[in-house]
Amino acid sequence: MDSMTIIGMTSIIVAGFTISIGSIAPALGEGKAVSQALASMAQQPDESNTISRTLFVGLAMIESTAIYCFVVTMILLFANPFWNLVAG
Amino acid sequence: MDSMTIIGMTSIIVAGFTISIGSIAPALGEGKAVSQALASMAQQPDESNTISRTLFVGLAMIESTAIYCFVVTMILLFANPFWNLVAG
Amino acid sequence: MDSMTIIGMTSIIVAGFTISIGSIAPALGEGKAVSQALASMAQQPDESNTISRTLFVGLAMIESTAIYCFVVTMILLFANPFWNLVAG
Amino acid sequence: MDSMTIIGMTSIIVAGFTISIGSIAPALGEGKAVSQALASMAQQPDESNTISRTLFVGLAMIESTAIYCFVVTMILLFANPFWNLVAG
Amino acid sequence: MDSMTIIGMTSIIVAGFTISIGSIAPALGEGKAVSQALASMAQQPDESNTISRTLFVGLAMIESTAIYCFVVTMILLFANPFWNLVAG
Amino acid sequence: MDSMTIIGMTSIIVAGFTISIGSIAPALGEGKAVSQALASMAQQPDESNTISRTLFVGLAMIESTAIYCFVVTMILLFANPFWNLVAG
Amino acid sequence: MDSMTIIGMTSIIVAGFTISIGSIAPALGEGKAVSQALASMAQQPDESNTISRTLFVGLAMIESTAIYCFVVTMILLFANPFWNLVAG
Amino acid sequence: MDSMTIIGMTSIIVAGFTISIGSIAPALGEGKAVSQALASMAQQPDESNTISRTLFVGLAMIESTAIYCFVVTMILLFANPFWNLVAG
Amino acid sequence: MDSMTIIGMTSIIVAGFTISIGSIAPALGEGKAVSQALASMAQQPDESNTISRTLFVGLAMIESTAIYCFVVTMILLFANPFWNLVAG
Amino acid sequence: MDSMTIIGMTSIIVAGFTISIGSIAPALGEGKAVSQALASMAQQPDESNTISRTLFVGLAMIESTAIYCFVVTMILLFANPFWNLVAG
Amino acid sequence: MDSMTIIGMTSIIVAGFTISIGSIAPALGEGKAVSQALASMAQQPDESNTISRTLFVGLAMIESTAIYCFVVTMILLFANPFWNLVAG
Amino acid sequence: MDSMTIIGMTSIIVAGFTISIGSIAPALGEGKAVSQALASMAQQPDESNTISRTLFVGLAMIESTAIYCFVVTMILLFANPFWNLVAG
Amino acid sequence: MDSMTIIGMTSIIVAGFTISIGSIAPALGEGKAVSQALASMAQQPDESNTISRTLFVGLAMIESTAIYCFVVTMILLFANPFWNLVAG
Amino acid sequence: MDSMTIIGMTSIIVAGFTISIGSIAPALGEGKAVSQALASMAQQPDESNTISRTLFVGLAMIESTAIYCFVVTMILLFANPFWNLVAG
Repeated sequence: MDSMTIIGMTSIIVAGFTISIGSIAPALGEGKAVSQALASMAQQPDESNTISRTLFVGLAMIESTAIYCFVVTMILLFANPFWNLVAG
Repeated sequence: MDSMTIIGMTSIIVAGFTISIGSIAPALGEGKAVSQALASMAQQPDESNTISRTLFVGLAMIESTAIYCFVVTMILLFANPFWNLVAG
Repeated sequence: MDSMTIIGMTSIIVAGFTISIGSIAPALGEGKAVSQALASMAQQPDESNTISRTLFVGLAMIESTAIYCFVVTMILLFANPFWNLVAG
Repeated sequence: MDSMTIIGMTSIIVAGFTISIGSIAPALGEGKAVSQALASMAQQPDESNTISRTLFVGLAMIESTAIYCFVVTMILLFANPFWNLVAG
Repeated sequence: MDSMTIIGMTSIIVAGFTISIGSIAPALGEGKAVSQALASMAQQPDESNTISRTLFVGLAMIESTAIYCFVVTMILLFANPFWNLVAG
Repeated sequence: MDSMTIIGMTSIIVAGFTISIGSIAPALGEGKAVSQALASMAQQPDESNTISRTLFVGLAMIESTAIYCFVVTMILLFANPFWNLVAG
Repeated sequence: MDSMTIIGMTSIIVAGFTISIGSIAPALGEGKAVSQALASMAQQPDESNTISRTLFVGLAMIESTAIYCFVVTMILLFANPFWNLVAG
Repeated sequence: MDSMTIIGMTSIIVAGFTISIGSIAPALGEGKAVSQALASMAQQPDESNTISRTLFVGLAMIESTAIYCFVVTMILLFANPFWNLVAG
Repeated sequence: MDSMTIIGMTSIIVAGFTISIGSIAPALGEGKAVSQALASMAQQPDESNTISRTLFVGLAMIESTAIYCFVVTMILLFANPFWNLVAG
Repeated sequence: MDSMTIIGMTSIIVAGFTISIGSIAPALGEGKAVSQALASMAQQPDESNTISRTLFVGLAMIESTAIYCFVVTMILLFANPFWNLVAG
Repeated sequence: MDSMTIIGMTSIIVAGFTISIGSIAPALGEGKAVSQALASMAQQPDESNTISRTLFVGLAMIESTAIYCFVVTMILLFANPFWNLVAG
Repeated sequence: MDSMTIIGMTSIIVAGFTISIGSIAPALGEGKAVSQALASMAQQPDESNTISRTLFVGLAMIESTAIYCFVVTMILLFANPFWNLVAG
Repeated sequence: MDSMTIIGMTSIIVAGFTISIGSIAPALGEGKAVSQALASMAQQPDESNTISRTLFVGLAMIESTAIYCFVVTMILLFANPFWNLVAG
Repeated sequence: MDSMTIIGMTSIIVAGFTISIGSIAPALGEGKAVSQALASMAQQPDESNTISRTLFVGLAMIESTAIYCFVVTMILLFANPFWNLVAG
């Protein structure tokens, strides 16, 4: 295997691994947060505005870790610094 | 094995791995959210509109991580940048 | 092993892996949602229509991740882009 | 090992793996749903019709993921596209 | 190792694996369902007929996934399509 | 290693694996069912007949998956179709 | 390694594996059943006869899966059909 | 390595594995049973005789699976049928 | 493989591993914190300001561990000291 | 490696493995039993004699599985039948 | 591979491993602490000052273990004593 | 590698493994026992003498399994019967 | 690979492993302790001094195991007795 | 690799493994004990002296298993009997 194939193969593997593993925890964390938000709304309907606002801020915060992984995946697939050097 | 076979084989493996692992957490998270929504509705039927709306926003947010994985899978199968270069 | 055998073998393995792993979480998530729906109906029989409707929307949402995996499996078995190229 | 043996061996392994792993989650999910249905009936006997109907719809939905796996297993054993090509 | 030995060995391994792994979840799911049925009967003795009927339908549904695995095991041992071709 | 040794060795390994793994879940499921039956009897002594009957039906159902595994084990040890062919 | 050594070595390994793994679940299941029986007796002393009888039937049922494993272990050590053929 | 060394080495490994793995579940199950017995005695001191008797029968039943493993271990170390044949 | 390829391949693998594993715990921890914040707001609406402030400080603290991992990932991809030396 | 070294090395490994793995479950089981005994004493101080006696019998029973492992370890280190034969 | 490449590759792998694994527990621990702090504030608003102060001391204590890992990561990447010696 | 090195290396590995794995369960079990003792004291201060005494007996019993492992570790490091023979 | 490279590589790997694994449990344990301290303060504000003091002593005790690991890591990186001998 | 390097490498690996694995359980156990001590103090402030004393005795007992591991680590690094012999 030449360098280009190795780097390409590695990039594909790591891209898939990163986004699939990296999306486990955010999905679970968001499921937990959404689920509690629904429970809180049922318990205290008058506060649904405050709860919604806090929920969305929290979801954005949790989603950020999924975004990190998605960014790294995209960098590996389309702007891979090592690939550019090897295949340039 | 020549480069083309290696890249092809790797892409197939990673595509399947990505979508299968990447769909675990969203399915669990959505199951949790839907389940709590049903519990909340039974507890506070008058708020079913607010609960539905929040549930759908939350499901979309959780589903987004599955979409990331599906997008990466599709890129690997049909728009693989490394494959195009090797097999071009 | 020639390229055709490798790609074929890999496709078979990944197809089975994808659908089997990919159907774990939806089945569990749906079990949880259905189970809670039944509990909610027993608790609030008057809301069984709203609960049913929300349950079916939720099940469809959860099932979608299983559908993604099934689609990828079918693509790998019957419309494999790499196989077509290698065996064409 | 020639191509035919490899493809055959792989198909057997994946067929068994797919159906055995793929039947874990549906069985657990259905066990959970059935179990909750029984609890709901004991709690609200008057709603046993609605509960039964929802239970059967839910079981069918959960069973569908087991069916996907069974279909893929049968395809691999009796209508394997790669085997047909290699052994044709 | 010749083709016949490989296919035979693989079939034995997969047959045992399929039935042993495939019987884990049904046994657990049925244990859960039976256990809840007994609890429901103790709680609502007057409904024991409805509970029994629902229990048996549910057990049949759960057992079906064990049956799938048993069928695949028997196919692999006594009606193996690949073995027939190789050893024919 | 000749074919006979390989098939023999594989059969021994799979026989032990099948019965040992296959007896885990039934034992746990039966333990759960028996345990709940005892709890139900203590709670509702007047229904001990119905409870016993349902318990025994349930135990038979759960035991059936252990029986499947035991049957496959015995087939592998004493009526192995592949062994007969190889050693015949 | 000659055939006799291989079959002997395999038999020893599988014998130990079968009995050790196969005794995990029965011990846990029996522990659960006994433990619940003691709790039930403390709660409903007048039913201790019915509870004892059900407990012993249940323990026998659970112990049966351990017996299966013990039988297979003894067969492998002292009445191994493959060993007899190879060493005969 | 000659046959004698292989069989000896295997016997040592399996002996240690069998007794160590095989003693996990009995110890946990007995811990659970003893623990519940103590709780029951504190709750219903007048029944301590019945509880003690049931506890000891249960412990003997659970201990039996540990005894199976100990017997197999001793057989492997001091009455190993394969060793006798090989080293005889 | 020459040094440049090895260092490049290693950097890609570790970059993906670091950000994907490193984002698991923060996402779960934040999900837990957000979820509890929503529950607290529903329970004590008058304190929603104090709760929000403490939540944001806590989220920043938890996010910091994800940031550490993201920083290390970026260093490995774009400012790798070993790569610079090897490829310089 | 000669036979003596192999048997010696194996014995050391298995001795350490046996005692370390074999002491996990007894320690946990005893911790559970002691912990429950303390809870029972706090709940029913007048029965502390009966509780102590039952506790000590139970601990001895649980400890027995640790003793089995310790005995096997000592046999392997100081009275190893295979070692004696090989090194004799 | 020469020494320099080996040491470099190892340092990259260990750096990523250390920070990613090392940030799991602090994030979970902090999530737990923050979550409890919010619950305590909702329960006892008058003590929010004492709670905040204790929370921050605790977070600093927990964060310290993440800092240890970050320090080791930075040492490995930028002040590696072995690299300096080998590459010096 | 000569015999002496092999036995030495094995002894070191097993010594560390034994004491580290062997100290897991005692620490957890003692933590559980101490924790319950503190809870019991808070609940029934008048019995703190009986509780202390039982706690210390229990701790000694649990500690004994850690002692077994420590003894084996020390034997392996400083009184290794196999090392003495090989290096003698 | 010469001795120096091997010892260096091993030291790097073990240093990272030690501090990352060794910081898991202290962080979790401290998170638990801090979390309970906050709950206790909310429940019994008047005892916040005693609680704080006990908390800090406990945290120091738990932190000590992280310190052990950090010390070993530093010894391996900067005062490695084996490295000094090999590289001296 | 010569004997000295092997023994040195093994000692480093085992030293790190021993202290890192060996510090998991004590930290968790101490966290549990401290946490319960704080809860007990909040519940029964008048007994804080007895609780403290018992806590410290318990912590010392739990810490002892961490000390065992630390001692073995130090022996391996600075007073290794095998190293002394090999390198002497």
